Amino acid sequence: MTENSKTVFIGKKPAMSYVLAIITSLSAGDNKEITLKARGRAITTAVDVAEIARSRFLKDLKISKIAIGTEEMPPREGEKNSRMVSTMEITLQKP
Amino acid sequence: MTENSKTVFIGKKPAMSYVLAIITSLSAGDNKEITLKARGRAITTAVDVAEIARSRFLKDLKISKIAIGTEEMPPREGEKNSRMVSTMEITLQKP
Repeated sequence: MTENSKTVFIGKKPAMSYVLAIITSLSAGDNKEITLKARGRAITTAVDVAEIARSRFLKDLKISKIAIGTEEMPPREGEKNSRMVSTMEITLQKP
Repeated sequence: MTENSKTVFIGKKPAMSYVLAIITSLSAGDNKEITLKARGRAITTAVDVAEIARSRFLKDLKISKIAIGTEEMPPREGEKNSRMVSTMEITLQKP
């Protein structure tokens, strides 16, 4: 990727593994901006990741944008209705 | 309260009970703004509450502010160290 921004999808791994991914990516220097994307329960992890990265490792990191939204997910096996799931995006920026 | 803003603390109840609290409070008309505050796992619920209130009930509601942070919590029984907990604030505003 030659873009200036990168996206990290937050899932079920421990927060620290995403923090490491962010630090690695920002230190490599190909991008100044990282967007964390999370759905449902992973939203809490996304906030943890942003806070840990910022307060413990990259103290000059700024939160440039936070957005929340809703996504429609296909129904689970054996269910009829699609589900609405909350989403969150946090964009972190190096100075 | 005669203030223009009100705070709702999001905890472990189902999202819908907080949504109802918001609708009731905003309909009463004493305030135009409500701030949802949540910690840890309840952050996901706070996002759900904001999204449900906005997309299903009060369609003219705007998200005027989203902020995340960290709070230090006292150690649990039998533990020595205090814990860091992520926090989130979502401010909803009526036009």
